[in-house]
Amino acid sequence: METRSVLDRFGERDWETETDGTVRFALVGLGWWTVDVVIPAIEQSASCETTVLVSSSAEKAKRLADRHEVSEAITYDDFHDGAATDAYDAVYVGTPNAYHLEYVETAAELGKAVLCEKPLEATVERAERLVEAAEDADIPLMTAYRMQTEPAVRRAKELIEDGFVGEPTHVYGNNTQPILEMNPDPDQWRLDPDVTGYGTSVMDLGIYPINTARFLLERDPVRVSARMASSHEAFEDVPDQTATFTLTLEGDLPLVCTTSQHAQQDTQLKIIGTEGTIELTPAFHGEATLHLSSGSLRATIEDTDYGAVEEMREEFAYFADRVESGAPILPDGRHGLADMRTIRAIHEAAEYDGPIDIDH
Amino acid sequence: METRSVLDRFGERDWETETDGTVRFALVGLGWWTVDVVIPAIEQSASCETTVLVSSSAEKAKRLADRHEVSEAITYDDFHDGAATDAYDAVYVGTPNAYHLEYVETAAELGKAVLCEKPLEATVERAERLVEAAEDADIPLMTAYRMQTEPAVRRAKELIEDGFVGEPTHVYGNNTQPILEMNPDPDQWRLDPDVTGYGTSVMDLGIYPINTARFLLERDPVRVSARMASSHEAFEDVPDQTATFTLTLEGDLPLVCTTSQHAQQDTQLKIIGTEGTIELTPAFHGEATLHLSSGSLRATIEDTDYGAVEEMREEFAYFADRVESGAPILPDGRHGLADMRTIRAIHEAAEYDGPIDIDH
Repeated sequence: METRSVLDRFGERDWETETDGTVRFALVGLGWWTVDVVIPAIEQSASCETTVLVSSSAEKAKRLADRHEVSEAITYDDFHDGAATDAYDAVYVGTPNAYHLEYVETAAELGKAVLCEKPLEATVERAERLVEAAEDADIPLMTAYRMQTEPAVRRAKELIEDGFVGEPTHVYGNNTQPILEMNPDPDQWRLDPDVTGYGTSVMDLGIYPINTARFLLERDPVRVSARMASSHEAFEDVPDQTATFTLTLEGDLPLVCTTSQHAQQDTQLKIIGTEGTIELTPAFHGEATLHLSSGSLRATIEDTDYGAVEEMREEFAYFADRVESGAPILPDGRHGLADMRTIRAIHEAAEYDGPIDIDH
Repeated sequence: METRSVLDRFGERDWETETDGTVRFALVGLGWWTVDVVIPAIEQSASCETTVLVSSSAEKAKRLADRHEVSEAITYDDFHDGAATDAYDAVYVGTPNAYHLEYVETAAELGKAVLCEKPLEATVERAERLVEAAEDADIPLMTAYRMQTEPAVRRAKELIEDGFVGEPTHVYGNNTQPILEMNPDPDQWRLDPDVTGYGTSVMDLGIYPINTARFLLERDPVRVSARMASSHEAFEDVPDQTATFTLTLEGDLPLVCTTSQHAQQDTQLKIIGTEGTIELTPAFHGEATLHLSSGSLRATIEDTDYGAVEEMREEFAYFADRVESGAPILPDGRHGLADMRTIRAIHEAAEYDGPIDIDH
């Protein structure tokens, strides 16, 4: 396989099966991501339609439904009571982490397919209950890893499989952002351990390099050492304002990650191998740029056609394709659960101050 | 201080004192670095002159002396016997690691200033003897960290001191190269623990991000965790074909490094802070490029005027300036010794498989 042939079909939906039909969505949790990114992404996707908005506030749901021409607006209680079930086929769960379980349980009871945001839940135990609820009800469940349908990432995976980097020797991932500049509220849910779960920077940011590396290399973490620290007062309830961790992936491959919720925004994922390097810089927030280097070859492919909305459009299109075709969903609930166990182990290793095995 | 004002005087020798005169060098060890980089660098430097070449082989020394118009060619034994001492003021030690001590001891006995390649020696104990020999004889001793006089690095240091990155949150360094492509000989000294010392990738490559981060941030490592592995048969005698280590710098700042002697060449040093990032990519092999990012500011300064020869020219000019002026040498022997202790601790931490304190 030529490098060029991979890049010539950059935006190709290699995952697409032959289906038609439209999946109608109830969107649960109307935060800025759902409103500013998910609703436009669904509008751009021929196979998806938003038909129900679900919020704690009837007024907010109604107002946004009117603005976006969505037919139904219901409250969380209405949703649990089975309101408007004829109006949707699938549920997108975009609430804070610790509320995912209850909506997935209701969706499972109602027999609806679920696309659930990452991380799957606040704790491993709750994520296990979430996955089991979906399995018991035999509903499709996807964990919303949009990097897995991002074209730059899929092409990188093909190049790695084709031997572009040779034998990988190291992976480095960074994901940092200034969360208090993005949202100055010190009481925001990402800093509240009852809602976010184990912490903030690994749960919210570290999950990107962890999951993207797993996807690209098809290797799971088996061992971890970690250190984390919080110094700013807004982070006093979470241990990982800043974190650094080294995962050993299967085949003894180190994945080193740095994360912070109180730093300049910077995202990078670099895979170094015996024959070449593949780098995504920036990597994770709707501006993926692929840098290839091998011998004398140097190439940079800026993925300007795929912002956050387009990444979510691809993710929803993939999910809809799987719901319609019945084909296996690759980032399924068990896949998302593995990251929850890894994140828990990262926190345990930081507490233990030494390497520990990850129990999958 | 404006970012622009720092960059406008990119190549400025801010370290220069008012001296004149020329320092005459004996070059000990005529490997490719000495011949292809050091001799041209000295030729470019008005304050330096090569007057003596020292090799194990009288023929090799004579042949290279003729080619480069150097007046004296002597053997190692001649050097130890005090040959041609009137012809040189200072000694550049560019032999393999485990031979530095004997030449520095002789130079100290002869009262000559010494510029010694890094790492200082093969082991901490030998490096201590080397530093003590120089101190006892009261000769100037510099450890040859050429990144410390590389303009991109000095400007980065000024920007960091001026608050460009705010409070640093993480440092990441990578230094990888395919040593068997550069030199296919499996018996080369860098793979022989009797000559290289603790290992190969940390001693030879990891020392760059370690020392450059120390210089940029003025913080020393106090704690380390590490993992290393060798799989290729050429690396069977050294533990670190590939290494990954996390140093805690003073002030609880993590420095994460990845190194390999059997990977695609790739060098990077990234400092992430609360207000900005400063990155050198590539960083370490005569092609330093400075990337600045803070808020909406993005700038890239390609240091095309400074290849490896010019970096060494700056290093020799700095050393000559210090020898002539008597001003303090910043990367002195004690400074180089701290990196030796850190490298030993990295190897010990990998063996121990847990974090250990670094005993300075």
